[in-house]
Amino acid sequence: MNHIIKQLSSRKSIRQFTGENVKSEDLELIIRTAQRCPTSINGQQISLVYTKDKATIKKIAELCGGQPQIATSDVFITIVVDFNRTAFAVEQAGETQLIEKSAEGVLVGAVDAGIMLNAIQVAAESLGYGTTAIGAIRSAPESMIKLLGLPPQTFPIVATTIGVPTKEALEAPLKPRVPINSFSFEDTYSDIKVKDGVIAYEKQMKQFREDHNMDYLQSYCEQTANYYKNIYSRKIAKNYKSQGFEFKD
Amino acid sequence: MNHIIKQLSSRKSIRQFTGENVKSEDLELIIRTAQRCPTSINGQQISLVYTKDKATIKKIAELCGGQPQIATSDVFITIVVDFNRTAFAVEQAGETQLIEKSAEGVLVGAVDAGIMLNAIQVAAESLGYGTTAIGAIRSAPESMIKLLGLPPQTFPIVATTIGVPTKEALEAPLKPRVPINSFSFEDTYSDIKVKDGVIAYEKQMKQFREDHNMDYLQSYCEQTANYYKNIYSRKIAKNYKSQGFEFKD
Repeated sequence: MNHIIKQLSSRKSIRQFTGENVKSEDLELIIRTAQRCPTSINGQQISLVYTKDKATIKKIAELCGGQPQIATSDVFITIVVDFNRTAFAVEQAGETQLIEKSAEGVLVGAVDAGIMLNAIQVAAESLGYGTTAIGAIRSAPESMIKLLGLPPQTFPIVATTIGVPTKEALEAPLKPRVPINSFSFEDTYSDIKVKDGVIAYEKQMKQFREDHNMDYLQSYCEQTANYYKNIYSRKIAKNYKSQGFEFKD
Repeated sequence: MNHIIKQLSSRKSIRQFTGENVKSEDLELIIRTAQRCPTSINGQQISLVYTKDKATIKKIAELCGGQPQIATSDVFITIVVDFNRTAFAVEQAGETQLIEKSAEGVLVGAVDAGIMLNAIQVAAESLGYGTTAIGAIRSAPESMIKLLGLPPQTFPIVATTIGVPTKEALEAPLKPRVPINSFSFEDTYSDIKVKDGVIAYEKQMKQFREDHNMDYLQSYCEQTANYYKNIYSRKIAKNYKSQGFEFKD
């Protein structure tokens, strides 16, 4: 098992930080490294806005519903879908950009943001830092847009914390995943395997909770139901629209 | 510079393959490793469908507009947004899933797909394989849905090739990125830096093309305009809708 497989295989979200700083040269290396990840058509429709300012990070934590894992992180990086950059490039070629007014544009931006997020996290973790992906910035897109000074044709879609993990956080057990045969299929998808996988995983997660005395942990079905029975981030479609995006065609 | 930073920093898309096989045990390791990446609320709303079958891969290459880089790859992995799994989990908890009928659901699926895509590629590259992200499956979602046997509440959003890279592909020069000071910002976004960055990058890419005798390469502004002046994947919104998704709220 090589270093990379080893790191990815033992990856976990880190929500407890020591309060030590992410070194400036490490942060720069993380960002430079992540920028090498691919983007659709090499359009580079992603920008990053990071902050090390503790007051700003606390403000973002509040916008995200008061999450201590954000408030106590050392660096917060917002991944911004950036069709402002590409619109200018298209203009330079004498044309007018249309892509952001389509489902294709919205999806390209979101997929590329996910790629960038993972690249940032893998780079940060290789330097010994801990991270957690933060989707909750989508609970307050208007405030995030204002805070980060984002122009039209951009959207703050997802973010990550970075900090120095506590020993306890590093040593926490790895949460199981759904059975591999219900996650990955050769040639064709199997609905039965997916459903059997959910049932097996539910049992496994309840056992995991018991084995590790994690009473506070919801089971897979409980947690998924608690989030997904609702549309918990209302106004996103409206905010996308007011930033100049449309989900059509 | 550690192994991981080194690999990510020299990352490039590989489009020429030797025709050698990806070992079965490597493919399994890649998939198992990638499954450790994070998903929003640990919902695990991603599934993979891979194929090693040469006839199927050639068929997919045609659906994607006749791409030789797909036809000549050894393994093709489609990343599927899978709210069918979570719908069943929500049902098991006695509730009804609503999230896929919202912009939040559509975006969570797409971001998580990007995270998974990068995790697969990083793992594959660590084992010496080459990959390219394939967005063109969105040109023919209906055919892909049928081919892979995908049920409602799922969507084939992005894919990746895997194969053994040719020596030439490995040795190709790294394509520059937009200047780092136009990509990453402390605290607030700078529209001026983004635009200056596009202009500087355009010059750099033209120089790169000249330096490496790559006449066929479009400049950044040319390529971006050629794609983004159009909405080049029509019917995606319709296909999302027919799979049970809505981009609202």
